[in-house]
Amino acid sequence: MTAEAAGRAARLEFSAAPHLDHIEASRFDRPTLVISRDIVARQYAALAQGLGRARIHYAVKANPAPEILQLLAGFGSHFDAASRAEIDACLAAGAEPQQITFGNTIKRANDIAYAHDLGITHFAADASEELEKIAAHAPGADICLRLLVEFETGADWPLSRKFGCTGDKALMLMNRAKELGLTPMGLSFHVGSQTRDPEMWAETLDGVAAVWHAAELAGHQLTMLNIGGGFPASYGQRLLPPEEYAARVMAQVEARFAHVPQLMAEPGRALVAEAGAIVAEVLLVSRKHSHDLHRWVYLDIGMFSGLAETMGEAIRYPLTTCRDGESTGPCVLAGPSCDSADVLYEKQPVHLPIGLKAGDRVILHATGAYTSTYASVGFNGFPPLDVVVV
Amino acid sequence: MTAEAAGRAARLEFSAAPHLDHIEASRFDRPTLVISRDIVARQYAALAQGLGRARIHYAVKANPAPEILQLLAGFGSHFDAASRAEIDACLAAGAEPQQITFGNTIKRANDIAYAHDLGITHFAADASEELEKIAAHAPGADICLRLLVEFETGADWPLSRKFGCTGDKALMLMNRAKELGLTPMGLSFHVGSQTRDPEMWAETLDGVAAVWHAAELAGHQLTMLNIGGGFPASYGQRLLPPEEYAARVMAQVEARFAHVPQLMAEPGRALVAEAGAIVAEVLLVSRKHSHDLHRWVYLDIGMFSGLAETMGEAIRYPLTTCRDGESTGPCVLAGPSCDSADVLYEKQPVHLPIGLKAGDRVILHATGAYTSTYASVGFNGFPPLDVVVV
Repeated sequence: MTAEAAGRAARLEFSAAPHLDHIEASRFDRPTLVISRDIVARQYAALAQGLGRARIHYAVKANPAPEILQLLAGFGSHFDAASRAEIDACLAAGAEPQQITFGNTIKRANDIAYAHDLGITHFAADASEELEKIAAHAPGADICLRLLVEFETGADWPLSRKFGCTGDKALMLMNRAKELGLTPMGLSFHVGSQTRDPEMWAETLDGVAAVWHAAELAGHQLTMLNIGGGFPASYGQRLLPPEEYAARVMAQVEARFAHVPQLMAEPGRALVAEAGAIVAEVLLVSRKHSHDLHRWVYLDIGMFSGLAETMGEAIRYPLTTCRDGESTGPCVLAGPSCDSADVLYEKQPVHLPIGLKAGDRVILHATGAYTSTYASVGFNGFPPLDVVVV
Repeated sequence: MTAEAAGRAARLEFSAAPHLDHIEASRFDRPTLVISRDIVARQYAALAQGLGRARIHYAVKANPAPEILQLLAGFGSHFDAASRAEIDACLAAGAEPQQITFGNTIKRANDIAYAHDLGITHFAADASEELEKIAAHAPGADICLRLLVEFETGADWPLSRKFGCTGDKALMLMNRAKELGLTPMGLSFHVGSQTRDPEMWAETLDGVAAVWHAAELAGHQLTMLNIGGGFPASYGQRLLPPEEYAARVMAQVEARFAHVPQLMAEPGRALVAEAGAIVAEVLLVSRKHSHDLHRWVYLDIGMFSGLAETMGEAIRYPLTTCRDGESTGPCVLAGPSCDSADVLYEKQPVHLPIGLKAGDRVILHATGAYTSTYASVGFNGFPPLDVVVV
């Protein structure tokens, strides 16, 4: 889809969105993410409906704005925290320790102790050394072992082999956990962020089910399956409604894991991405030589000030401008810093109005996830992204 | 070079380094960049000697720590600022406005006005619209036009086409600047960061000289050549000493531009990279399956907390550990966040001691440039990089 078409879709999709109304009515003197509580609430309700008995643990890393955590805590959401600071943010928002899981498989030893002292009992792991740290600092904890999933799921944001272990290793780690006085409670996995087709979960679920049954045959009584995240947000594409997507995933889960007492999911992006839009400003429009067909459009926000997910042009945000409706031409889109890697979209240019010029407002839609906290503290002297919750 | 060999080279190279002495004698409870004023001073002196009559404008973006800016201001260094915040940092460090150039070709209009009001007169540009903004907000300013250089210079950190314009466009912009009441003062370019062989400058300098002479033939009286940055720092490789590297570049510059009254250069990385080291901690060592040959080593710092230049494995920092001397094996090195893109070195694994384990200290050498300000404000709840200047 061209950026123009994506922009039209975004306008259509979000036409009644409070964050866009707020943007419309306001002036901003620096790049600002405006995020709508109402849309987060709508997405939460839709996913909760589709997920049925699988409990939502919001992946705090997607957007840890206090107002969002408070909203979700008020709905009874649980939380998946990646670090001590995220645990603190959940508590500050009103979550109880029993509602928080420490899902990062890479934890600092004294952060494990900190979580344990608070009463957090659920820890993720994928390695012997992690189990040893947990046994030493959170004796008796419940362990969810993360599997390495290597099926092709068509995810937009690539999953590396960074997290998880193979099935045989997971069985070995269950034994090791027991030796260490821990409770191997279940399995987790991640299909890959932005897995747009629910049917792409099947092969992964088959793989996880095979490990689960092998664990049962080996005498482990697992009680919890964590299906992770991967629920897509719309970046201008037409997707299934979230409740239907989640329901289709759950049908596949139940077909394999109906006997499992506890199910949980960790949506992050799907809850917050569409709820946010970044207001930016064009700083410069140029052509490299006089007869260049492509223009370069430089914004006051770039890869190092919140748009890190444009790396490799992986995530393509729908754009709208104050000149939409005019005729358009192809543009390379870049950030404001002196770093030559700070280019957002070049291989697949975006189509923007011919009349676009410095000072014009550009809105980047569906930017509620993985933007505000990715922003650098001050690269090139540019401030981090401002966040307004409406 | 293996990481182990690079580590040995780093230890050798920096054996008398005050930042390493400080690290040795201190405890750190989070990832910390320790940077040595003495080494920055040594690098400044060496480059200044080699650059001769070309004045140093420190590229503030490489590391804007106040102590470094104060040190360089005390030496009479000039400064190249990318933004209003960097201008303020230079002034706070004692620089006079006449010592500051506004070298970002992408400037916000009111930042141009701000700089002009302070008395800054030197602005970079590569586009008509930028000239118009400068004419409106800094009437009469001196303009350095940036050329787009597309020769192969063997640079480690890729230069995209983001900055600069072609030669014919530069001539057109000189005319346009005059029409707008500005003074087209000279040309700038950038050979690419980490251009390790000074002879690789030749082709670029030929190209710039051709544009320069065309401008003279067209009646423009240019007075300033800005040769930019690109001066390399050692990441464990053997390089020419900085004074010799700079002298060899200057010999090639003078062969073509002896008649140019003012020369300037904008080193950043070459002044500060080798002066800094990051103290980090191993959080976890794991194998994905029982018979894996490669280990995964997870540090408490990653791509989103200061090591953005590992993107594409472009910059490879030499590593030392508290277990150096033990036998080693290949490792994938990754950061602590739940983001699967937060992997530092995978395609070319690093060799680290077999006995390495959680809690062990790892030092990343030559990390004084482009680390502290690239760090995210709090991705996954991890704090930005701490900075200590000794």
